[in-house]
Amino acid sequence: MGSPVHRVSLGDTWSRQVHPDIESERYIPSFNVERLINILNGGPQNTALRRKVESIIHSDPEFSPKDNYFMTQNEHYVAAVRKTFHLQKIAKRLGWSENSPEFYYAYRALSGELAFNLHRVFQKSLRSLGSEEQIAKWTPLCNEFQIIASYAQTELGHGTYLQGLETEATYDTATQEFVVHSPTFTATKWWPGDMGRSATHALVQAQLICSGARRGMHAFIVPIRSLEDHSPLPGVTVGDIGPKMGFDSTDNGFLRLDHVRVPRENMLSRFAQVLPDGTYLKLGSPQTNYFSMVVIRVDMLLGEVIPLLQKACVIAVRYSVIRRQSRIRPNDPEAKILDYQTQQQKLLPQLATAYAFHFLASNLSEFLHSSCDAILNKDFSHLPELHALSAGIKAMVSDLCLQGTELCRQACGGHGYSKLSGLPSLVTKVTASCTYEGDNTVLYLQTARFLVKSYQQAHPTPGSTLQRSLPQSVAYLATTDLARCPAQKAADFLRPKLYTMAWAHVATRLVKNSVNHLQTLMQSGADWDEAWNQTTVLHLQAAKAHCYYISVKSFTEALEKLENEPVVQQVLRRLCDLYALHGILTSAADFLHDGFLSGAQVDAVRTAYLDLLRLIRKDAILLTDAFDFTDHCLNSALGCYDGNVYERLFHWAQKSPTNTQGNPAYEKYLRPLLQSQRSKL
Amino acid sequence: MGSPVHRVSLGDTWSRQVHPDIESERYIPSFNVERLINILNGGPQNTALRRKVESIIHSDPEFSPKDNYFMTQNEHYVAAVRKTFHLQKIAKRLGWSENSPEFYYAYRALSGELAFNLHRVFQKSLRSLGSEEQIAKWTPLCNEFQIIASYAQTELGHGTYLQGLETEATYDTATQEFVVHSPTFTATKWWPGDMGRSATHALVQAQLICSGARRGMHAFIVPIRSLEDHSPLPGVTVGDIGPKMGFDSTDNGFLRLDHVRVPRENMLSRFAQVLPDGTYLKLGSPQTNYFSMVVIRVDMLLGEVIPLLQKACVIAVRYSVIRRQSRIRPNDPEAKILDYQTQQQKLLPQLATAYAFHFLASNLSEFLHSSCDAILNKDFSHLPELHALSAGIKAMVSDLCLQGTELCRQACGGHGYSKLSGLPSLVTKVTASCTYEGDNTVLYLQTARFLVKSYQQAHPTPGSTLQRSLPQSVAYLATTDLARCPAQKAADFLRPKLYTMAWAHVATRLVKNSVNHLQTLMQSGADWDEAWNQTTVLHLQAAKAHCYYISVKSFTEALEKLENEPVVQQVLRRLCDLYALHGILTSAADFLHDGFLSGAQVDAVRTAYLDLLRLIRKDAILLTDAFDFTDHCLNSALGCYDGNVYERLFHWAQKSPTNTQGNPAYEKYLRPLLQSQRSKL
Repeated sequence: MGSPVHRVSLGDTWSRQVHPDIESERYIPSFNVERLINILNGGPQNTALRRKVESIIHSDPEFSPKDNYFMTQNEHYVAAVRKTFHLQKIAKRLGWSENSPEFYYAYRALSGELAFNLHRVFQKSLRSLGSEEQIAKWTPLCNEFQIIASYAQTELGHGTYLQGLETEATYDTATQEFVVHSPTFTATKWWPGDMGRSATHALVQAQLICSGARRGMHAFIVPIRSLEDHSPLPGVTVGDIGPKMGFDSTDNGFLRLDHVRVPRENMLSRFAQVLPDGTYLKLGSPQTNYFSMVVIRVDMLLGEVIPLLQKACVIAVRYSVIRRQSRIRPNDPEAKILDYQTQQQKLLPQLATAYAFHFLASNLSEFLHSSCDAILNKDFSHLPELHALSAGIKAMVSDLCLQGTELCRQACGGHGYSKLSGLPSLVTKVTASCTYEGDNTVLYLQTARFLVKSYQQAHPTPGSTLQRSLPQSVAYLATTDLARCPAQKAADFLRPKLYTMAWAHVATRLVKNSVNHLQTLMQSGADWDEAWNQTTVLHLQAAKAHCYYISVKSFTEALEKLENEPVVQQVLRRLCDLYALHGILTSAADFLHDGFLSGAQVDAVRTAYLDLLRLIRKDAILLTDAFDFTDHCLNSALGCYDGNVYERLFHWAQKSPTNTQGNPAYEKYLRPLLQSQRSKL
Repeated sequence: MGSPVHRVSLGDTWSRQVHPDIESERYIPSFNVERLINILNGGPQNTALRRKVESIIHSDPEFSPKDNYFMTQNEHYVAAVRKTFHLQKIAKRLGWSENSPEFYYAYRALSGELAFNLHRVFQKSLRSLGSEEQIAKWTPLCNEFQIIASYAQTELGHGTYLQGLETEATYDTATQEFVVHSPTFTATKWWPGDMGRSATHALVQAQLICSGARRGMHAFIVPIRSLEDHSPLPGVTVGDIGPKMGFDSTDNGFLRLDHVRVPRENMLSRFAQVLPDGTYLKLGSPQTNYFSMVVIRVDMLLGEVIPLLQKACVIAVRYSVIRRQSRIRPNDPEAKILDYQTQQQKLLPQLATAYAFHFLASNLSEFLHSSCDAILNKDFSHLPELHALSAGIKAMVSDLCLQGTELCRQACGGHGYSKLSGLPSLVTKVTASCTYEGDNTVLYLQTARFLVKSYQQAHPTPGSTLQRSLPQSVAYLATTDLARCPAQKAADFLRPKLYTMAWAHVATRLVKNSVNHLQTLMQSGADWDEAWNQTTVLHLQAAKAHCYYISVKSFTEALEKLENEPVVQQVLRRLCDLYALHGILTSAADFLHDGFLSGAQVDAVRTAYLDLLRLIRKDAILLTDAFDFTDHCLNSALGCYDGNVYERLFHWAQKSPTNTQGNPAYEKYLRPLLQSQRSKL
């Protein structure tokens, strides 16, 4: 196992000694943690590169996280800008390009607490939606920060439903310009990051109107602040939307446009063009607008969301071997709380989920990148599946990461409520991801529509013509499956084939059920839209089961590839088993409903599950160590590698402004009252 | 219906006009909202008194909530102290005593954003645990704020498990003093409110040692700060624990005691005394220490936790009739989001839960107060039931209030993430209640122990002597019930008797199952403690079902008493039905497991449930109006009575320091970079 020096880096004196209660957990490791780290990183060379970047970042005092929990929103913003420019300087000096792994690792090491994330989204959208000339023109300006750009889609009154956006871009043939305009109060752009106080330009999503016809949403580059003095340009009202639950370092903004004119060339035109005379040319399918969202959604999972759950697991599991509470037997010392079944039941399924999602998102990312070139070359055949998969997986991952992160937080008791634990900021960040890049309910329903279509394609009504085969991720909907689960004892449920098949069964049944209800309503006279709204609860349920099936399948497939690492494979197998069985127990009603599982079989699942908890408990610290987060990156008084929880909590608290800034209430309020009738005492 | 003038009180110009989309919801009310308000308030005279208090509070500029979302932790603390003293002055002038309804309503109107809540907990503990002389001595000092007191139980290394607390109080016969001491680092008191910066005294829970024997936890009044200059007294290290997820206005503190001496009279001695010579006298049962916790736990439900869910419902439901998104049919205008089945499924069960918990907590509170006198007179016969009930109900209420509040927040999309919506602060407050006054898992398990005992008492092993009858709340465990639910169609599930019986069945089955597993393990050689730890997952499940049963039962019983209000009764009946059925669907596996419900019956439950959603949808705004929160009290840009959501959000954002304080990052970072190579543009 490699030296853990790179992990312990907060430089406090007590850090030099690892707490015996955590040391004992690492004493005789059942597997080689370093090998698992390398698997998660995609090879030892990546691990080495990441650690190199981390050591550069963490040894630089400009990047110190020490005051993070004591800053105001304004201070957070300034710090993020400062760090971003500092990182930019370092990147330039060391030759890290914008999309290099070094940059990615630096971002990870800094927990994304940087400015200009939307500046990067702007660039990604430019690459997805812009013509080659546009990419050539704007990319260097972005790279050199000669402009700072934002991506402005959501409006005060409109979110996920793109067609409802009100902002208009009307083409004026006379001047060959677009007039970009917020026609109503609710058309005010609201939420774009980097817009509140930084951006000079925005990529504005607006309804294109040309030659008198409405052409739907298109993207326009609109300058919003002066490059001279940063003041809003004529016709532009722009500012910050104020305090939020998290993301203090981001200046989410608002933007109202009053007939702002931009040249014809500012409409991104890979998939659609307006000619000088106002002729509208469509170069792609209506789905192209969704493509940049798909790219952003997939990137956010591995880059932003999943690490939040991983960190929460690291913090909570490490704390749970230091914290002792109550006794399991009357004469024992107080027990480590991780030795309680209830604590294991809270944390270990989250740990399994964090691993499952790593493999799921990697898988999805590979699929995206293998489809990307085709799409950019206007072959959209994979786009519907990619869209449906990315929508549902984004929804499931963010939902379950939120549940898991909050569970980890609560599992740390009162200390989990202290910001110094690092957990509150993980929770408030992950909860945002349930909304941004598409509300989860809406996304699940998009997946559900794809499932309904696929199911109907696989089971055509009598007389309709046979259609082409189903995309890979939904191929299982066409196969007939067992009516009852063949498992006879707890151990049977530890077979990947068996539980993957069980998930396929339940997903198929629920999709079928939702299709049947839809059809029944339509046969009784409802039109499609009404019938859809009356069955969305069922579609949601079906989409969730489908996504869980996909995640179980991707986990089992990833493990099959680890033949050369049998020991690590065995350890991960338990996590995979736990993930699948935890899901079955959580959704047990769906498995019992049609008798696929009996009550006795569900009990057998629980038996297998509780046995797994005991086994995984032994490796829990090693499995969290394998995420290989530095102490800097965790920035948690509870979660440091050395386990010196209480000392750190106490000493960090001393630095809080509530201790360093005196008590302004004393002279003014407390003292007069306390001393008013003091003679009585 | 009474004038809504008292509700709209934020004085913005647009408030004068109610948004037509919310006005239409109130246009032809299906019931008299004012009557429902009176039922919730316990009579029209209470409603009137509450509104009188609210008008006093809200017309006073000292209590303005306007900057609440823009303040630092220090500013919050100072504001809370300022408001508390101002309230104290008003209370004195108007003759409101500390425990008067006026005070309670003032606290509600100010959303508890006051200092010295622990000062009040100190007083409650004093009344529960102090002798008459002690009460007579300390109460007036507290009432006049000649001292400011805190309640110090939790330690850095120890929480819910009272016996694990390390702080010691050793009696010194020579001086007739207790020496109160923190023997280790982890013995540092941690979390007590009002202690960080305010308190002059603390009620310290410590292990009593007298005549060489350890006597368990007792409470000691310890002076900690000078009444002269507020500096820590000799031997005292005290300060603030720093930033938290919420509760910025509270100065949660830490306290280390180095052999601090207090007189013998400072040990609270209603239930135990130390005589001058060190003789220990026990005057009560070992449970007495828990009694003050029971009192505090019950009070917190109605006073703190449940209003958080109610407010979240008000905000989210009101927003959901203003927000329009997407179309239900292609040519319709965009629909109110509350007309979507998925939004109804999110919000309306929460609304039902908010009502259910009101009646549940009122019920529990009545039981407590009817038992109180007996307990203070040392008749402890009701204490075990009261303890078990209050523990489980506290756990269930806070868990489900958290889930519901977060669901309401997410149901408002991006705007729910803005602090200006009021929702984030509700979530961060309610999530704390899952931990304070006892971690929910630990509390559920305390209820479970009582259930196991009760079950064993009702089903004695052959040969054991017959025992006395079961306490009322668990009497159902002794009755034999049906093996299968007799319902045949959806409408059958709308019978309170039927669904109450269904909950009783499932709770009984799960308790029985957990007892059986416990016994099986013990028969195979495990000792009780080990067997208990290996079955806690099952005990948790049983305790949750029991608590849900209790809540369904209390809701149905409360409705039976509303015979004289048939219209309101009918409206509430739907909520009660929804609450019961929502619970069944959420826990459907428990009902399917033994075949009590078939899959087809679960489908019938869902049909009944979806029908209820449609019916309750029509009354949703009226049902939220009936909580009768003022706009001041909600302090939400999304949730005001008039529905002018977007204007308020926009105008409130303008006042944020991120807009009013300039951009310090511009001159220092943005400008140099943006202008470095500007000639290229």
